[in-house]
Amino acid sequence: MDEINALSWEPFIQQFGNVVEHGRIVAGAIWGLRPFADNKALHEAVCEFMDSLPPNGKESILRCHPDLAGRLAQANQLTSESDQEQSSAGLLNLTQEESNLIADMNTRYKEKFNFPFVICARENKKVVIIAELKSRIHNSKDAELEKGINEVKKIAWYRIVDATAMESKSAISKM
Amino acid sequence: MDEINALSWEPFIQQFGNVVEHGRIVAGAIWGLRPFADNKALHEAVCEFMDSLPPNGKESILRCHPDLAGRLAQANQLTSESDQEQSSAGLLNLTQEESNLIADMNTRYKEKFNFPFVICARENKKVVIIAELKSRIHNSKDAELEKGINEVKKIAWYRIVDATAMESKSAISKM
Repeated sequence: MDEINALSWEPFIQQFGNVVEHGRIVAGAIWGLRPFADNKALHEAVCEFMDSLPPNGKESILRCHPDLAGRLAQANQLTSESDQEQSSAGLLNLTQEESNLIADMNTRYKEKFNFPFVICARENKKVVIIAELKSRIHNSKDAELEKGINEVKKIAWYRIVDATAMESKSAISKM
Repeated sequence: MDEINALSWEPFIQQFGNVVEHGRIVAGAIWGLRPFADNKALHEAVCEFMDSLPPNGKESILRCHPDLAGRLAQANQLTSESDQEQSSAGLLNLTQEESNLIADMNTRYKEKFNFPFVICARENKKVVIIAELKSRIHNSKDAELEKGINEVKKIAWYRIVDATAMESKSAISKM
């Protein structure tokens, strides 16, 4: 953690800028709160910053996420983090039927809420994700905004663990 | 403006995502506020969103900006918007003496405030920018945070004008 706490903001944003998808502003904001005792404290700072945003800022955080198994996935244009996550859930390897079903549900979800369906793919396999899509679409907008941001927090946790592990490796290799 | 108001958020973020440097979250937030009467209304929404951020969010907006005539400029790694702006102010064509002076002042500025010096390069030539760097470094942190965000608002205005002009051209070419 010492190496991370010692980073100036440019390398810090470089390393943690996608802990929240396309969320450089989140990384830049929490940099000022160093030193962090551990991963968990860094994650809490990320969560608190997101909670401090006005509702349209929270909606925007969700809008910066790609559709699950969507256009960007099909065009191989996901960020490397999203690519790994969607792959681990089995979302990059769907039957035509599953693919059509998810595309249709995503469209309906976005039409209703004006932000995309976000779920922590590392914690769920595709059958659960499809079931969640079918169920969550019936929620209220407020409930889904909260639910979506909670999922972003879970995603951020795994990405922080990966990013800090990478930093330790790089520190060891410099020793 | 009708074409812009009709955009779904993905192309909207694509087009306006860098109106604030690396600020996709800003673009995603104001998308929900369409329709905009004109450029000016869109710009006001951008300004209001930045004003609604907590102080560390505002500091982060500044931290997402590159140093003027800094490392990224020298390595040709600026966003296309920043590249044009720094070039128009004459910042990509400095004498060695000017270059050293700006680098030194940037470092001192960042050490004092923990965010970089931001100025609307389209409104200022390099002599003015150097004078401002020399002068603004004596301000308080609160004053510079406000000043910096005001400069980001000016930068955003020019970028919005460019981005909407591009949209009109593309709409005309489709007719």
